[in-house]
Amino acid sequence: MEHLTIVYVLSALVIVAALAFAVYIINWVKEQKNENKEIARIAGLIQSGANAFMKKEYTILAIFAFIVAVIIYIFLPKPLWMEGADSSQNLMMALCYIAGTIFSAVAGKIGIYVASLANARCAEAAQEDIRPAFLIGFRGGAVMGLMVVALCLLGVSLVMIFVGDASMLLSFSFGASSLALFAKAGGGIFTKAADVSADLTGKVEFGLNEDDPRNPAVIADNVGDNVGDVAGMGADLFDSNVATMAAALVMATAMGGKNPAMVLCYAALGLLASGIGIYLCKIEGEDGTPTKALNLSTYTATGIYLVLTALATLIFGFSWKYWAAAAVGLMVGVIIGLATNYFTDDNMPIVKKVAKASATGPAFTVLSGTSYGFLSALPAMVGIALAALIAHRLGGMFGIAMSAVGMLSIVGTIISNDAYGPIVDNARGLAEMGGLGEETIRVADELDSAGNTVKAVTKGFAVGAAGLTVISLLGAFLEEVNAISLVKLVGFDIMDPTVFFGILVGAAIPAVFSAMLILGVDKNAQRLVAEIHRQFSEIPGLKEGKEGVEPDYNRCIDIATTGALKELIPAGLVAILATVVVGFIGGVKAVGGFLLGNIVTGLLLALYMSNAGGIWDNAKKYVEAGNEGGKGSDAHKAAVIGDTIGDPFKDTAGPSINTQITVVSLVASIMAQLFVHFHIF
Amino acid sequence: MEHLTIVYVLSALVIVAALAFAVYIINWVKEQKNENKEIARIAGLIQSGANAFMKKEYTILAIFAFIVAVIIYIFLPKPLWMEGADSSQNLMMALCYIAGTIFSAVAGKIGIYVASLANARCAEAAQEDIRPAFLIGFRGGAVMGLMVVALCLLGVSLVMIFVGDASMLLSFSFGASSLALFAKAGGGIFTKAADVSADLTGKVEFGLNEDDPRNPAVIADNVGDNVGDVAGMGADLFDSNVATMAAALVMATAMGGKNPAMVLCYAALGLLASGIGIYLCKIEGEDGTPTKALNLSTYTATGIYLVLTALATLIFGFSWKYWAAAAVGLMVGVIIGLATNYFTDDNMPIVKKVAKASATGPAFTVLSGTSYGFLSALPAMVGIALAALIAHRLGGMFGIAMSAVGMLSIVGTIISNDAYGPIVDNARGLAEMGGLGEETIRVADELDSAGNTVKAVTKGFAVGAAGLTVISLLGAFLEEVNAISLVKLVGFDIMDPTVFFGILVGAAIPAVFSAMLILGVDKNAQRLVAEIHRQFSEIPGLKEGKEGVEPDYNRCIDIATTGALKELIPAGLVAILATVVVGFIGGVKAVGGFLLGNIVTGLLLALYMSNAGGIWDNAKKYVEAGNEGGKGSDAHKAAVIGDTIGDPFKDTAGPSINTQITVVSLVASIMAQLFVHFHIF
Repeated sequence: MEHLTIVYVLSALVIVAALAFAVYIINWVKEQKNENKEIARIAGLIQSGANAFMKKEYTILAIFAFIVAVIIYIFLPKPLWMEGADSSQNLMMALCYIAGTIFSAVAGKIGIYVASLANARCAEAAQEDIRPAFLIGFRGGAVMGLMVVALCLLGVSLVMIFVGDASMLLSFSFGASSLALFAKAGGGIFTKAADVSADLTGKVEFGLNEDDPRNPAVIADNVGDNVGDVAGMGADLFDSNVATMAAALVMATAMGGKNPAMVLCYAALGLLASGIGIYLCKIEGEDGTPTKALNLSTYTATGIYLVLTALATLIFGFSWKYWAAAAVGLMVGVIIGLATNYFTDDNMPIVKKVAKASATGPAFTVLSGTSYGFLSALPAMVGIALAALIAHRLGGMFGIAMSAVGMLSIVGTIISNDAYGPIVDNARGLAEMGGLGEETIRVADELDSAGNTVKAVTKGFAVGAAGLTVISLLGAFLEEVNAISLVKLVGFDIMDPTVFFGILVGAAIPAVFSAMLILGVDKNAQRLVAEIHRQFSEIPGLKEGKEGVEPDYNRCIDIATTGALKELIPAGLVAILATVVVGFIGGVKAVGGFLLGNIVTGLLLALYMSNAGGIWDNAKKYVEAGNEGGKGSDAHKAAVIGDTIGDPFKDTAGPSINTQITVVSLVASIMAQLFVHFHIF
Repeated sequence: MEHLTIVYVLSALVIVAALAFAVYIINWVKEQKNENKEIARIAGLIQSGANAFMKKEYTILAIFAFIVAVIIYIFLPKPLWMEGADSSQNLMMALCYIAGTIFSAVAGKIGIYVASLANARCAEAAQEDIRPAFLIGFRGGAVMGLMVVALCLLGVSLVMIFVGDASMLLSFSFGASSLALFAKAGGGIFTKAADVSADLTGKVEFGLNEDDPRNPAVIADNVGDNVGDVAGMGADLFDSNVATMAAALVMATAMGGKNPAMVLCYAALGLLASGIGIYLCKIEGEDGTPTKALNLSTYTATGIYLVLTALATLIFGFSWKYWAAAAVGLMVGVIIGLATNYFTDDNMPIVKKVAKASATGPAFTVLSGTSYGFLSALPAMVGIALAALIAHRLGGMFGIAMSAVGMLSIVGTIISNDAYGPIVDNARGLAEMGGLGEETIRVADELDSAGNTVKAVTKGFAVGAAGLTVISLLGAFLEEVNAISLVKLVGFDIMDPTVFFGILVGAAIPAVFSAMLILGVDKNAQRLVAEIHRQFSEIPGLKEGKEGVEPDYNRCIDIATTGALKELIPAGLVAILATVVVGFIGGVKAVGGFLLGNIVTGLLLALYMSNAGGIWDNAKKYVEAGNEGGKGSDAHKAAVIGDTIGDPFKDTAGPSINTQITVVSLVASIMAQLFVHFHIF
C-alpha cells in the first residue's frame, strides 16, 4: 500500500493548497471596493434571501436525511434482523450517507457566500474597466469550484482511510446525491417560480420594470440565480464527481494493485490542474475578451492535467491504458462541448434559424427549437457511446470508469466558469438598480454574454461525464449484486423479459420526473402570485411606491422555498419508489434494465431540454440585439415565449435529470441485497 | 400440415367474405344521395387532388422501391458473389419486397377512393339526420379497414404458400414498411405543410376564411386529411400488422407443429370479428350517440374475437397458453386505450387543466401540455412492459409475438374508426363550403367530435401493438443471426460495450428522425407560402374573387407533394444508414443494442408527441366550446398556438416513429448476414 500512502499525502497537499487558495481568494474579493450604498443594500437583501432559502432548505433536508439515515441503518447493507447482519456496518453506512450530505452542503454554503460578496464588487469594478470586473466575477466563482472539488476529494479520502470499504463510498455518494436533488431540482423550481411570478405580476399585471423594488418577488428572483445556478450547479457537479470517483474506486478496490491509488491520484491532479488554470485566468493583451480568458483557462487546465497524469503514470508505474482511457474521456468531453456550442451559440447558424422562425409566430419558435434540441442530442450520445466503446477496449468496465474520471478531471474549472455566470448576471442587475450608468451596464453585459457562451462547453462536460458515470454505476451495481448473490450474473440480457420489463419502466421515469418538476414550477408560481396580490392589496402605499414602504421580501422567499420543496419531494419519491417496486417485482435483473432505461432516455431528455432551452434563450438575446425586427417586434414576442418555455427546461428539469439518474442508480446499488432476496418474478 | 391446409381454406373464405363485404359497402355508399352541385364540385377537386398526390407519391416510391429491390437482389440474403449464394433466393426476396409495397398501395388507393366518395354523401345525409350520416361516414372508413386486413392476410398467406420460407415474410414486411414510410411520414409532412401555409397566408395575411376557395392551398389542405389520415394511417397499420404476423410466423415456423397454423387462424378470426363488429355498428335507440356506436363496435369485435379464438383453440387443439398471451395483449391494448383517453379527452381533467393554463399565456399551454404528454407515456410503457413480461411467462418470446397478434387482432375495427374521422371532418368542411346551414354543421360537428374521442382508444392499440411487435422483431433478428452465425448468441448483454454503444446511438435516432420531419413540415410550408404569393400576384382577379377566376390548386398540391417527399427521404435514409453504420462498426451485437435503443426512446417519443398533440388539440376545442373565455380570448389565442405546435407532433412525427422503428428493425434482420461477416469491433 505504499503507493496509496504517497497518493494520500499528495492528495492532502493538493487539498490544503486548494483550500488555502480559496481562502486567499475570499479575502481578495472582500478587499475589493464596495462603496455604493444602494448597491450594498440590495446586495444585502439578496444575500439574506439566499441565506433564508438555504436555511429552510437545509432544515427540511436534515429531516429528510435523518429519515433516510434511519432507514439505511435498519435495512442496509443487510436488514438488522437477518443472519450475518452487522449493526456497526449499518451504522457506518448511515454515517457515510450523512457525511455525504454535509460535505456537499458546506461547499454550497461557502460558494453562495462568496458569490453574494462578489456580485456587488463586480458591479462597482465594472465602472472602471472590464479587466478587474472580470477578475472579481471569475474568482468569486472559482471559490465554489475549488471548494467543491477539494471537499469531494477530502470526503472520499476520509471514507477510504477510516472505513476502508469502497462500497461505503456509494452511501457517501448517495448523501451527496440527496443534497443535489434538493439543491438542483429544488433550487430550480424555486428560481423559475420566482422568475415567472415576478414577471407575470410585475411586468404584465402592474406594469412595473424588470427589477422594480416594489415587486415583492423581485429579491426572490435574484436569489434564485444564486441558489439555482451557484449552489445547485455546484451540488450537481459535487454529486457527479463523487459518484464518478465512487464507481471507479469500487471497481479499483475489487481489482486491487495500484488501481485505487491511481484513481485518487488522478483526481488530485485534476484539482491541481484546475487550480493552476484558475490562477492563470485573466483577460490578456489588447484584444483579450472574457470569452477568450475563460476558454483559455479550460484548455490550460486540460493540457496541464494530461501532462501531470502522464508524469504520475510514469513515476508511479500506473497502467498506461487507463491513462489513455482518461484522456479519451477528456477529449470527448471537449468535443461534446464544442458540438453543444454549435447548437446554442448565437454566432452559429442554429440560433439564427430559430430567431428567424420566430418571425412567423411562437409556434414556429417552439417547433424549430424542439427540433434542433432533439438533433443536438445526437453528437453527445454518439460521443459518449464511442468514449465508452474505446475506453472499454482499453481497460474493460474500469476503463469506462476512468474515462468518466478523465472527463470530470477539470471539474474545478468547469464549476468556476459556470458560477461566474450568475455572479456577473447579478452584477448586471445591481448596476442597473444602482444606477451606475450605460457604460457600466455595457461592460456587465459583455461579461454576462461570455458566461452564456462558455456555459455550453462546460455543460457538455457535465452531461458527458454523467453519461459515463452512470454506465460505471451500472457496473458498480453488477459488482454489488455478484458480491452478494450465489448465482453470478454476467450481465443483463435485453432478451430476458424481466430485464426488458425494467428497461421500459425505467425509460418512462426521467420523463415523469421532468414533467413533475415543470408542473411544480407552475404550481409554485401560482402560490407566489397569490402572495404578491396579497401584499399589494394589504400593504398601504406599496403600489404607489411611497417612501419607506417596503414589501415583505422574505415572506415571498419563504413561500417559494417551502413550495419548491413540496413539489420536489413527490417527484424524487416517484423515481425512488419506482426503483424499489421494479426491484421487488423483477429482482436485480429488472433493476439492471431499469437503470439502463433510465440512463438512455434520461441522457436524451437532459440533452434535449438543456440545449433547447439554451437555443431559445440565445434566440431571444439575438433578436434583442436588433435582429429580425429587434425588441418589441413580433419575432421578439415569439422569442420571449420560447425563452419562458425554455427556462424550466434548461434550469429546472434538464439539469436535474442527471441527479435523478444518479440517485436511482445509488438506491439500486445500496438495496441490491434486498432485491436479491425478495422479488416476485 | 393438415391443420395448415384447413386454416388456409378458412383464411381464404374469410378474405373472400371481407372483400365481398367491402365491395358491397362501396356500392352502398355510391347509391347514397349526392345531388348538391357545389358540394360535388368541391369534393371532386379534393378527390382529384388526392389522386394527384398519390400518383406522384407512388411514382417516386416506385423508383425508390426499384432501387431497393435491386440492392436486395445483389446483396440479400447473401451477396451474389459469395459462396453458397443462390440467385433465385435473392430474386425471390426482391420480389417479396415489391409485393409488400404493392399490396399496401392497393389498400391505400381503394381506401382513399371510398373516403372521397363518402365525404360528400355524408355531408348531404347530415341534412336529414345524424343516423344515416354516421352510417355513411363509418362505412366509408370501414372499407379501408376491411381492405387493409384482408390484403395483409392474403399477402402473408401467398408468401407462405408459394415461397414457404417464413423469413421471406420479413422482406414482404419491409416492402409494406417502405410504403408506410412514404404514406405516413410523407403524407404527414404534406398535410401539415398545406394546413400551415393555408392558415398563414389565408387567415393571417389576406384575411380569408378557413375554407375560402380563393386560397390556392385550400384544396391541398383538404386533400391532406385524406392522404395523411386515411391512406397514411392505413399504410401504418398495414405495416404493423404485417410486421406482427411476420415476426410471429418466423418464430412459429422455427418451432413447427401447429404454431404457424395458429398464427394464421388467429389473424383470420380477427378479420372475421372486425367484419362482424363493422356490420353491427349503428346508432341504436333514442339515446344512441356516434361515440357509443363506435365504442360498441370495438368492444363487440373484442368479445367475438376472444370467443372465436377460444373455439378454434379447442377444435384445432392449439396451445391454450398462446391463446392466453393473445388475450393479455388484447386486454392491455384496451387498458392503454383507456389511459390515453384519460389524458386526451376533453371531458377529463387533464385537457381542462391545460385549457386553464392557457389563460396565463402560450408558454404555459406548451409547458403544461409537454408535462402531461410526458406523464401520459407512463401507463402505456408500464402496460407494454407488463404485457411482455406476462406473455413471456406464458409462452416465451413466441408468447410476446402472440400477444402482439392479439393486440392487433381487431385492427380492422381500429382502422374503420380511425378513417371515419377524416371522412366526417371533410364532410363538415363540405357542409360549410356548400352552405348546408347551421343544423347540418352541428350534426357534422357531433360526428367529428366522436371521431376524435374514439381515436384515443384506437391509438392506444396501435402504439401498444407496435411496442410488442418490435420486441418480436428483436427476437426475429436474434433468430436470423443465430440461423447464420456459427457462434450462437443467447441475447444482447447491456454490459457488453458493443451492445451499449448500439443502444446509445439507437436511442438518438427517433429524436433525430422526428426533428427532421418537423423541420421538413416547416420548410415545405415555406415553399407553399411562396407559391401562394406568386398566384395571388400573377393571377388577375384572384384576390378580388372575380367570377370564374380560380387558383391553380393542382400546382400547390404538386409542390407540396414533391416537397414532402424531398424532406422525407433524408430522414428515412438517416435512420437506415445509422443502422448500417452501427452494424458495420459493432456487428450484430451493436445492432441488437441499436434496435433496443430505438424501441425505448421511440415508444416514449411516439407516446409523448401523439398525446401532447391530442391534449393541445382538445384544449383548443374545449376553449372554443366557450370555456376559459371562449373564442377570441387570450386563452384561445394561446390554445391555438398549442394546437399549431401539436399538429406536426401528433400527425407527422409521432405516428411516423412506429414506422421508422419497424423499417430499421427489418433492415437489421434482412442485413444480419452482412453484419455477421463484416464489422470493425
